[in-house]
Amino acid sequence: MKDLDNIPALMADIGARAKDASAVLAIASADTKRAALDAAAEAVWSNRKAIIAANEKDLVFGRDKGLSDAMMDRLMLDEARIQGIVDGLRAVAAQDDPVGEVLAEWDMESGLHIRRVRTPLGVIGVIYESRPNVTADAGALCLKSGNAVILRGGSESFHSSGAIHACLVEGLEKAGLPADAIQLVPTRDRAAVQELLSMTDTVDVIVPRGGKGLVGLVQREARVPVFAHLEGIVHIYLDADADPEKALKVVMNAKTRRTGICGAAECLLIHRDVADTIGQGVVRALLDAGVEVRGDEALQSINGVHPATASDWGCEFLDMIIAARVVSSIDEALAHIRRYGSDHTDCIVTEDEVAANRFFAELDSAILMRNASTQFADGGEFGMGAEIGIATGKMHARGPVGAAQLTSFKYLVEGDGTVRR
Amino acid sequence: MKDLDNIPALMADIGARAKDASAVLAIASADTKRAALDAAAEAVWSNRKAIIAANEKDLVFGRDKGLSDAMMDRLMLDEARIQGIVDGLRAVAAQDDPVGEVLAEWDMESGLHIRRVRTPLGVIGVIYESRPNVTADAGALCLKSGNAVILRGGSESFHSSGAIHACLVEGLEKAGLPADAIQLVPTRDRAAVQELLSMTDTVDVIVPRGGKGLVGLVQREARVPVFAHLEGIVHIYLDADADPEKALKVVMNAKTRRTGICGAAECLLIHRDVADTIGQGVVRALLDAGVEVRGDEALQSINGVHPATASDWGCEFLDMIIAARVVSSIDEALAHIRRYGSDHTDCIVTEDEVAANRFFAELDSAILMRNASTQFADGGEFGMGAEIGIATGKMHARGPVGAAQLTSFKYLVEGDGTVRR
Repeated sequence: MKDLDNIPALMADIGARAKDASAVLAIASADTKRAALDAAAEAVWSNRKAIIAANEKDLVFGRDKGLSDAMMDRLMLDEARIQGIVDGLRAVAAQDDPVGEVLAEWDMESGLHIRRVRTPLGVIGVIYESRPNVTADAGALCLKSGNAVILRGGSESFHSSGAIHACLVEGLEKAGLPADAIQLVPTRDRAAVQELLSMTDTVDVIVPRGGKGLVGLVQREARVPVFAHLEGIVHIYLDADADPEKALKVVMNAKTRRTGICGAAECLLIHRDVADTIGQGVVRALLDAGVEVRGDEALQSINGVHPATASDWGCEFLDMIIAARVVSSIDEALAHIRRYGSDHTDCIVTEDEVAANRFFAELDSAILMRNASTQFADGGEFGMGAEIGIATGKMHARGPVGAAQLTSFKYLVEGDGTVRR
Repeated sequence: MKDLDNIPALMADIGARAKDASAVLAIASADTKRAALDAAAEAVWSNRKAIIAANEKDLVFGRDKGLSDAMMDRLMLDEARIQGIVDGLRAVAAQDDPVGEVLAEWDMESGLHIRRVRTPLGVIGVIYESRPNVTADAGALCLKSGNAVILRGGSESFHSSGAIHACLVEGLEKAGLPADAIQLVPTRDRAAVQELLSMTDTVDVIVPRGGKGLVGLVQREARVPVFAHLEGIVHIYLDADADPEKALKVVMNAKTRRTGICGAAECLLIHRDVADTIGQGVVRALLDAGVEVRGDEALQSINGVHPATASDWGCEFLDMIIAARVVSSIDEALAHIRRYGSDHTDCIVTEDEVAANRFFAELDSAILMRNASTQFADGGEFGMGAEIGIATGKMHARGPVGAAQLTSFKYLVEGDGTVRR
């Protein structure tokens, strides 16, 4: 029996088991991993009643705790959502296996043949909040990429995550893989998070999934590398050479399709040459759609525009609100984005190649777009399959983090008794 | 005038200048950067007398400080060594420019065209010891990869590094690039190192160049990512199916070509089936070449072999010493390397595909070799051009770190008014 009161010992044990399991996973075949994911999908579906019963307990706990309706909705599982989890597991199972892929291969005059080959990272820690489906999504992506994973779910989804986790373990065991390949921290004690963040000997990377509070905490406290973005302060710049129709389509989709995702637009910059034409049209359409537009002085003549305050620039609203400003040049737009952006996703609407090239070259966001909705900032929409999140760091994984981004590499060098002069 | 006593303010100013310069460098053309490096090479050669005079001051300081002969030799510059620096600068100038390279490019059914494009990391801090040539080597590689660099040389090479740095700045200015692109910390105060390690707002990565003391300090204290290896505890395993001639050539070269580099072999593992044949021959050849062989019991019957002690396993001798041990199977060899290795470079000598595949799959060193000398662990020998070092971390740069490894990437996404469903 594990002693759930001695958190450091508990987590050290989990870390050591994960490390042992990672050595097995690193050489597991693509077929074995696929079989484990398919078996897990089957187990989730056949245990849907038990999962819903476990979820009931979490909902009671959440109601007692006074969770908001939005949080209660995120927490809730029904058959349709469980079908979604099953579909997700099968989709990851069907993806290409990244491990062992030869990333580059070349010969040297010395006689060496060199290959750079994709390898798993090792052990990944995933810390998430109330959505219980992350248990399956994150567990599946880590397994696909040959990594052992330590899952630390939110206290609200404790029972739901436990029930889903049991199905993942069933899948692992059916495929002959170690159960420790996917572990769930079996306590709500928050000290477990602090431990996980400092386990440099056993954990290779931490992925936080959740709001700014969680991500900020992880980025501040972690002693191991973190794949994450703190905020998605997404800008759209309507250039002097913007096409009116594209501008309208892109801005409306980027702001209103879904407001709560990290790729949703939060700030609109409009070149003054088109402020009275395209700009007016776009702002009116936003207002008509029920978006609160917080504009600078130049835009306040438009009926319904609220005056923007300093705190609206660089704000991640995640809501039906957008900040909007007229700029006198592309330089002013670039300067605004450099100052207030978060290096996540930024977009230019223009027909001018020169302006597009400057926007692409002079900004260093993980994703830069032209004439396309920023809501495409997503691993699936990039053709990477499922994603565990979007990262804005410059090291390693950047942009959407799918299975391939959860890997490292090594060099395999072959000679024939080859020696160096 | 800079206040050299207020180290935090001094370093903050250097960091801010580097960040500003990095924005210019990121969009500098390949030709401009090449011109700066060629002009720097010219400046180093025409200022060779001034550099040698500055080096004279460092040699006096070093003699007074009682530096060892080896350290004095590392510090010393003459015309031949300055020619080496000039050649190095020209070689980096002639390398391909990594920035802007399209790493991948694809279309999505949604209509998006996606490119992943190489970008500079931003600002790189390089901390090194007595070799003054690192000033030019590291400065050149960072410039080539579009990064601003903050150089912090050893106190012993203070004047030499300063004289070389002045030539690099001359090159930058001739090419119209900001002088702040390559800065040298203008004080010997060690507090500057501590500052540099914690400048998370302005420094993107730290590269330590030097001995285990320096690298260990940097890895422990740095708050920014580090590209480094702590030790090169390089193993060679002579398999039961080793070719005798290849075994002899590879081991002799790997141990004796140069003993002080990180790719030098430090431990020899011999399969018991060939211990009395190939093993004996190799050990005798090592002894004949003047190598001190510290063997386990099975090898002590060979005349001249010293008994190994526990501390010899996992030891980086960097000298004419090798630890040697007989193992009963490849599994025992793998277990030994996992326990005592440093994930740098390890080698198997075998004609057996199965054994080679297991060695490649089951170890996770940055570089794994077969039938080739481990002294090939070098960016130049990998065809990457100059290297700033070898990294063993799993994040980002791994193995030899050349110009391409000093980069990150971003996604450039183009649509045509494309919106997400």
